Amino acid sequence: MLALLLASPAGARDERPPAPAVASEVAPALLAELTTRFGARPAGSPADRAAAAWLAGRLRAFGLSHVAIESFPILRWSPGDAAVDVIAPERRRLVATPLGGLVSGPTVTARVVAYDTYAAFLAAPADSVRGRIVAVLEALPGTADGAGYLRLVVMRSEGPAAAARKGAAGFVLRSLATHHERLASSGATKPLARPFPAFAISPPDAEELGRLATKGPVTLRLRPGAGWSGRAVTQNVVATLPGRDPTAPAVLVSAHLDSWEQGTGASDDGFGIAAVVAAVKALHDRPHRPLRSIRLVLFGAEEVTQPGSYPNFAGARRYIELHRRELAGIDLAAESDWGGGRIVGLRLPDLGDPGLDRRLAAGLASENVLVRTDRSASGPPDADVLKAAGVPLLRLDQDATLLFDTHHNARDTLDQVDMSALRQNVRVWTTVLRLLADRPLTPSPSPRPLRRAGP
Amino acid sequence: MLALLLASPAGARDERPPAPAVASEVAPALLAELTTRFGARPAGSPADRAAAAWLAGRLRAFGLSHVAIESFPILRWSPGDAAVDVIAPERRRLVATPLGGLVSGPTVTARVVAYDTYAAFLAAPADSVRGRIVAVLEALPGTADGAGYLRLVVMRSEGPAAAARKGAAGFVLRSLATHHERLASSGATKPLARPFPAFAISPPDAEELGRLATKGPVTLRLRPGAGWSGRAVTQNVVATLPGRDPTAPAVLVSAHLDSWEQGTGASDDGFGIAAVVAAVKALHDRPHRPLRSIRLVLFGAEEVTQPGSYPNFAGARRYIELHRRELAGIDLAAESDWGGGRIVGLRLPDLGDPGLDRRLAAGLASENVLVRTDRSASGPPDADVLKAAGVPLLRLDQDATLLFDTHHNARDTLDQVDMSALRQNVRVWTTVLRLLADRPLTPSPSPRPLRRAGP
Repeated sequence: MLALLLASPAGARDERPPAPAVASEVAPALLAELTTRFGARPAGSPADRAAAAWLAGRLRAFGLSHVAIESFPILRWSPGDAAVDVIAPERRRLVATPLGGLVSGPTVTARVVAYDTYAAFLAAPADSVRGRIVAVLEALPGTADGAGYLRLVVMRSEGPAAAARKGAAGFVLRSLATHHERLASSGATKPLARPFPAFAISPPDAEELGRLATKGPVTLRLRPGAGWSGRAVTQNVVATLPGRDPTAPAVLVSAHLDSWEQGTGASDDGFGIAAVVAAVKALHDRPHRPLRSIRLVLFGAEEVTQPGSYPNFAGARRYIELHRRELAGIDLAAESDWGGGRIVGLRLPDLGDPGLDRRLAAGLASENVLVRTDRSASGPPDADVLKAAGVPLLRLDQDATLLFDTHHNARDTLDQVDMSALRQNVRVWTTVLRLLADRPLTPSPSPRPLRRAGP
Repeated sequence: MLALLLASPAGARDERPPAPAVASEVAPALLAELTTRFGARPAGSPADRAAAAWLAGRLRAFGLSHVAIESFPILRWSPGDAAVDVIAPERRRLVATPLGGLVSGPTVTARVVAYDTYAAFLAAPADSVRGRIVAVLEALPGTADGAGYLRLVVMRSEGPAAAARKGAAGFVLRSLATHHERLASSGATKPLARPFPAFAISPPDAEELGRLATKGPVTLRLRPGAGWSGRAVTQNVVATLPGRDPTAPAVLVSAHLDSWEQGTGASDDGFGIAAVVAAVKALHDRPHRPLRSIRLVLFGAEEVTQPGSYPNFAGARRYIELHRRELAGIDLAAESDWGGGRIVGLRLPDLGDPGLDRRLAAGLASENVLVRTDRSASGPPDADVLKAAGVPLLRLDQDATLLFDTHHNARDTLDQVDMSALRQNVRVWTTVLRLLADRPLTPSPSPRPLRRAGP
């Protein structure tokens, strides 16, 4: 019962009775339908477009305004039918997936040179790498804030380029994952000027390869398959919840629609879509509109890099290009894209409203959310693109303990989602968006600092 | 330290000092090398033959006698490049694997008729099934003794035939698995006279399919790939630890060498191989040979069925054919093939030695093994073939709580093996084989039953 009441926090001015019990089920139902009907949604795929059309229809049905599908062209990337095989000492296939945004080139068969850590590989002289297939077997440490991933993701994003520079014939890395499953995790790599085969292998396969390499020479064969499969169209889906003052700066809230090929993008980022859409719907369903408008953006093409002028985050870059003149009318942006954990923290930029942190902390008192100011907070990536364009970022931190069990792999499916965490996210986003959109246009001046006590 | 002492149980007549610490590492090292070097070992594959040759070499190096590779022909089955796709309402690929020993036939595209239970499917009239793809979505209940699998395995072994009889176009079932991973579990089906497409799908995919089916019509496409890929050779690997009395009936202990394609057969049945080989080696390394000889058989072709006169368990059937005249000289058989759990029970046939259960219970006192007599005990399958040929079966029961998390899927790899459970299995098998091989040839007569107390 507590959960249901919290799902639609009743402000002092809210005269309607509490929302019906089903309100808390909007997000789980959206997420179930998105993942079940459309499955994986690689940018530019038919499933991506169908899911966008369906979501736009839902936003209209929910009563939001200015719902639009803003299409833009991309090059579609496909992992193809690639494979990684041990050829010697005995033949066997590894569980592997090509890194996103790379063109594999021709089949490569070469001896392996294995490194326990990325640092050891970087320190290795080019002589020891030239003509070999580099295998970096470093394991991702699991942490509640995902810091292990943020530290090691350079292995995936820059490792192939570093290997290519040293003259390597190919690159494999242990999947950036905290699980111990026979699953390979995809993820984007910085585009390279020439074809180069680069793969993530499953953690158990990485350990087998490490054991094999200690016994003697190992030869791997990297079979191509990955590459650009032609021009395609993807899209951002936008909508607005108009505020009481249409001239007031708006709040932008977002998530992303595309996923990798492996799973059904349930946590990355169906969870984010469900959380922010349900929160905006909850605010729409209240009798009192917030003061400021809320812009909802479901970005396309967050996952895959591009070889052209938009190297990555093409949806966010396209949004800025299309809406550049309106950006000054957005004074805060936030995105949900850090897996399916509960929200444990809120980092606030300087908005010139010294009471906001206290109002947020009070509104979130029952949710175990640490509210603090952090002007340097960054991410998720789409939000960073907006920040680079001058929009202050608000960051809601989620518990990422389990994120890298499902991240970019086939396990990112509905059954792995903690629906109670999703409901908590909806409650927190609803409260946060309400307080942000209702904050006064002219904040009260800062309270005068207390005079410091004497020595 | 306790574990190390127990790893080489010192009988009263054992005058040597305890075995060195490394004795307990024979099984983990064997298992690591088998899985790492050879990976999956489908019957008749190059890896199967290479692993058999390597194992025969290890058995010779361990000092066992009469080591031989007894080859026999089979038809090699391959899952091929099969796929299961949802075609409507939206296209998507399911994680699926063809059932072992079936020929898929041409591509089939048809509407799905889904059943929550196998019983509901069996009760359905043929009219409701004809021309459809049957989906049986029943979940495997997890139990410590694996009874859920033994009850539901009929879904896999006979479901395709039942669906074909009702005129269905194809058959998919939820993998017989207790995990909730994006992994499809293989397993053998009773051979059918004509091609028929039958697949196991991963538990999350089964749940997605169930949700989809409640929303409206679902069309699946079953793309073929599975089938017989030609004649091949596989083998049983045999060895003997000669007893003090070569004329005494021998004890046979076994495991199986082949695996499915998905994992590396670490628990099924690398674990069994490592356990029984290490136990026989431990007995060989003792100064006193057991009274009776111990025959070690590593069976081939346990997993896959065959279309010809040996429908299944071709290795065990071949062994009986080759050794029929010696079978009378084997008065007990036992096999390790029930996953990677600790041994929790021992079921003893009637061997006419009324003190044996007490000696076994005493020998296993520190291992938490329940010793009981059970003349109807059966399995694993190779052992059942020997039983059908008249050899009494001894069954060592393992805790199967985790068995169906890895069974016949890609997760059956070394990293999932509980090495402390493997060491316990080696200790138990060593003790059990020692006591069985040393039991007297003419058991002492049964103690006279106590006269029943009067009413």
